Amino acid sequence: MPRKILRVNMTNLEAKFEDLPQDFAALGGRGMTSTIVSKEVPPTCHPLRIHNKLVIAPGIVTGTRAPTSGRLSLGGKSPLTGGIKEANAGTSFAQMLGRMRIGAVIIEGKHEGDDYFTLKVTNDNAEFQDANKWVGKGLYDTYKALYKEHGDKVGICGVGISAEVLGAMSGVCFNDPEGLPSRYAGRGGLGAVMASKGLKFIIVDETGAPGVEIANKEIFSQGIKKLSNALGEHPVTQPKGGLNSYGTSVLVNIINEAGGLPQRNFSSGQDERAEQISGEVKAEEIKKRGGVRPHFCSPGCVIQCSEVWTKPGGKDPVGVLEYESVWALGANCGIYDLDVIGELNRACNDLGCDTIEAGDTIAVAMEGGLAKFGDGKGALKLMDEIRKKTPTGRFLSQGTEITGKVLGVTRIPTVKGQGLPAYDPRAIKGIGVTYATTPMGADHTAGYAITTEIMGVGGKVDPRDPKKAEISRNLQIATAAVDASGYCLFVAFAVLDIPEGLVGIVESLNGVLGANLTVDDVGVIGKQILDIELDFNKRAGFTATDDRLPEFFMEEKLPPFDGVFDVTDDDLDSVF
Amino acid sequence: MPRKILRVNMTNLEAKFEDLPQDFAALGGRGMTSTIVSKEVPPTCHPLRIHNKLVIAPGIVTGTRAPTSGRLSLGGKSPLTGGIKEANAGTSFAQMLGRMRIGAVIIEGKHEGDDYFTLKVTNDNAEFQDANKWVGKGLYDTYKALYKEHGDKVGICGVGISAEVLGAMSGVCFNDPEGLPSRYAGRGGLGAVMASKGLKFIIVDETGAPGVEIANKEIFSQGIKKLSNALGEHPVTQPKGGLNSYGTSVLVNIINEAGGLPQRNFSSGQDERAEQISGEVKAEEIKKRGGVRPHFCSPGCVIQCSEVWTKPGGKDPVGVLEYESVWALGANCGIYDLDVIGELNRACNDLGCDTIEAGDTIAVAMEGGLAKFGDGKGALKLMDEIRKKTPTGRFLSQGTEITGKVLGVTRIPTVKGQGLPAYDPRAIKGIGVTYATTPMGADHTAGYAITTEIMGVGGKVDPRDPKKAEISRNLQIATAAVDASGYCLFVAFAVLDIPEGLVGIVESLNGVLGANLTVDDVGVIGKQILDIELDFNKRAGFTATDDRLPEFFMEEKLPPFDGVFDVTDDDLDSVF
Repeated sequence: MPRKILRVNMTNLEAKFEDLPQDFAALGGRGMTSTIVSKEVPPTCHPLRIHNKLVIAPGIVTGTRAPTSGRLSLGGKSPLTGGIKEANAGTSFAQMLGRMRIGAVIIEGKHEGDDYFTLKVTNDNAEFQDANKWVGKGLYDTYKALYKEHGDKVGICGVGISAEVLGAMSGVCFNDPEGLPSRYAGRGGLGAVMASKGLKFIIVDETGAPGVEIANKEIFSQGIKKLSNALGEHPVTQPKGGLNSYGTSVLVNIINEAGGLPQRNFSSGQDERAEQISGEVKAEEIKKRGGVRPHFCSPGCVIQCSEVWTKPGGKDPVGVLEYESVWALGANCGIYDLDVIGELNRACNDLGCDTIEAGDTIAVAMEGGLAKFGDGKGALKLMDEIRKKTPTGRFLSQGTEITGKVLGVTRIPTVKGQGLPAYDPRAIKGIGVTYATTPMGADHTAGYAITTEIMGVGGKVDPRDPKKAEISRNLQIATAAVDASGYCLFVAFAVLDIPEGLVGIVESLNGVLGANLTVDDVGVIGKQILDIELDFNKRAGFTATDDRLPEFFMEEKLPPFDGVFDVTDDDLDSVF
Repeated sequence: MPRKILRVNMTNLEAKFEDLPQDFAALGGRGMTSTIVSKEVPPTCHPLRIHNKLVIAPGIVTGTRAPTSGRLSLGGKSPLTGGIKEANAGTSFAQMLGRMRIGAVIIEGKHEGDDYFTLKVTNDNAEFQDANKWVGKGLYDTYKALYKEHGDKVGICGVGISAEVLGAMSGVCFNDPEGLPSRYAGRGGLGAVMASKGLKFIIVDETGAPGVEIANKEIFSQGIKKLSNALGEHPVTQPKGGLNSYGTSVLVNIINEAGGLPQRNFSSGQDERAEQISGEVKAEEIKKRGGVRPHFCSPGCVIQCSEVWTKPGGKDPVGVLEYESVWALGANCGIYDLDVIGELNRACNDLGCDTIEAGDTIAVAMEGGLAKFGDGKGALKLMDEIRKKTPTGRFLSQGTEITGKVLGVTRIPTVKGQGLPAYDPRAIKGIGVTYATTPMGADHTAGYAITTEIMGVGGKVDPRDPKKAEISRNLQIATAAVDASGYCLFVAFAVLDIPEGLVGIVESLNGVLGANLTVDDVGVIGKQILDIELDFNKRAGFTATDDRLPEFFMEEKLPPFDGVFDVTDDDLDSVF
């Protein structure tokens, strides 16, 4: 039985299963979402009106026992960037879709009127339920209630209060293993797209699911063994390795040391207080408080970089405090207190906000005078404005760019309207090339040059050398392929250094698909996906002028090492 | 003595006179501003940071006794559209610059810090004065005080409260003959550009000015006589003609009748209550109240379409209530009460807001739930939010597009970020072609197709016929030339029908410049200016996708005649 598409028409509230077209048979994750968006969404359409679509697709191996592969992609036209968007999350929800052989959920049309709906998907059915009672409610309480209502085996995907006002900082929230609303396909405002259609939740019950069809079990098993070995050997991904011991926040001290941890809305790259919010300190605290660490975002992960952060005594579990979130809501706002950061992160999860966009937004709001840098209470109050949908909350919900414009701030750290992640491009230039040139808007995961620039994985280069076009391009291509596979991007740390791991990935894909891909095909697949995305953006009106960092990165020196972003326009244009 | 440039560097507070470059010798108005902006402003720069410039240039014949020629152009990169901008006003300030032989004032750099300055310009000097005491004050009281301080013969240009928060709906305000702050170079947010540099006012004292140099007085006199004759003969421009009797608001009934007067944020094209705010009713009211009508915006105008609207008893003079303002703040907000409209217009003038952008913004805010359509008190309260710089006021100050986004409104009537004027493009399609394709963002004056589509001047065509590319292009070219000349665009009504009038214009230009232009050169000059502007926008990243109306104009039928905007993309792209 081949995979199918679940097509959900919100205009007439119809949901029906369709055969997956033959030419989509080898697609998954980002390959699936970007292909469908490119074919079905007019690039110049309004992202929050009827012509946009939201596509959810598990990766190719997602739902199998392949290690660290519980990922899905969300695609659509982004209300934040105006271009194509793929946002990615690790969650059992993804694995359920895979096992139900749903290659993609396509949410289209638009409910006219103010009602919100839940879509309940079972193995052979999909039906709508009233979701109005959840409007205005936080997602922690809501997910708890939904699990009570639907049983603890379901997967949940939903949008929060910030999406109800069509805020462009709204992510789409998936359950973690404890059922917490903490696994976000956060970036690009796809939560607002989902809400714009009148859809509040999707609940998946996989009872009776046939499981992922594996065409060649032998080659599949051989492949995942090779990959598991590589993940187990590499110092970044192995048990008790960096990610496993400290989570992604292992980077706080490292990037701060490199002078590239943006402080106070990208005003400095280093602060001695950053140590207080490091992965090392956080891991100690979690042990003391009764949180969980290490922890996985979805079953079957061998890296286990996740955690459950709580208040002292194990109260108010947040879910993971990622490096990006700790930076965005912490150092970037001048806040060096994990308890405050935890509360801010919990507020983001509860309200349905992307933590990176929220942190950038708060920092810009601080620069615009709404609070002082370092004022944790002030920052929490701003999140409360979002919760209450006040005028201030309304513009904050729209993210960094609009908040900056509203407040007359001219140092707005965005590319294509999307807030920059946790690496200052003046100190670490390859990641800046990725921010500028990826079709996604400023996104570190799109071509994670930190790998080679800082971590020395897959080679080692000087972070301050501006010649990074090739590194960024190669990583962007490889990433697009990984995002299609269903593997977590973090497997790349291992396979960049251990070639046999990459062979394992390819074999596992061949096993599922019954294909004969080679290692060289990974680049071909990645390039195809990027070409689709770049073409969409071109049709949407993007030009080379959109592949630039904001003016102040070229003009303001970043303390303490006083670099500017000096990658030439020609170099940026040479990436694609 | 040739003309000079006054170059004002706000970074180091230096203002100095320079020779006008030889190749600028034939330029004026929009030709001057667009040429300088194109040469000196990097198209991708941030419009509110140091690299943008504000250029003020009187027209070629401005300051002479040529009829109806007291116009100036402002140029810069627009914070509203992100493209090049020319905004135009009629004011004695323009004539003073002309007589002082100042071909252009170029305001560049940026004062660091929170201080504001006044630039006082005399015939041979320019110096800075402290302007901090005027921050947060309304312009009516301020202009009155400035006239008291500097004498009643000066010209004043300034920015208001909305510009102090860098609001993209901020115009630059010039004095009218009574010294009222009512003559705006309103569109595109150039007021925010001026404020971003730390400049609050420019005060011009022309004492000792040599007057405009006229190379050939005989041909000049001959030319202005021909033009005066044409203006005097044509029914639209002659004494007691349409404009003279009722002002621009003569159009209210005409456009409403045509089903093209947008009501309640472009939801209908007609409302029987529109008659209550027509030019005819307004003229009667002005007579009763003790206002002034007809009236000129600058001395030497023979059309005299202006007026001074007041409260009953002649109190609180507003200045003119233009057709555009009456529509934007009236019908478009569902408000059909001239007293409320007068108060709203006075608030716009007082705060430094473009009335079109303000009206579009209020209407979008009403659609977004901040007030009900028709709620005049609610609308006035929104203007008060701007005055108080509240969070709501801050986003309103940014104009239609940002207000719509903040409030989750997806029917936002803008092109290139600028709010649409008073003609619904579904009912009158040529003006829609101009909105879509002019480099200025939605702007009726850029190629006023209403002339032929509704008024039957220069020919007569069916307003609902979508084949309007050629009409719009020809008008856009002619308009660019008129905007360079210093003549008011309204002279076009006469010269489109009376060829001898156009000959008169050309002769008057030849008289001033000592040139040998022919009537055919008008098109050449206009095309050159447009090419410069289109090139700037292209370098700023604009593509054909920016030359489009918002989605809803193609999909929502406009009552009562149920048209949609059905000009094809190919037709739009054929304009330039």
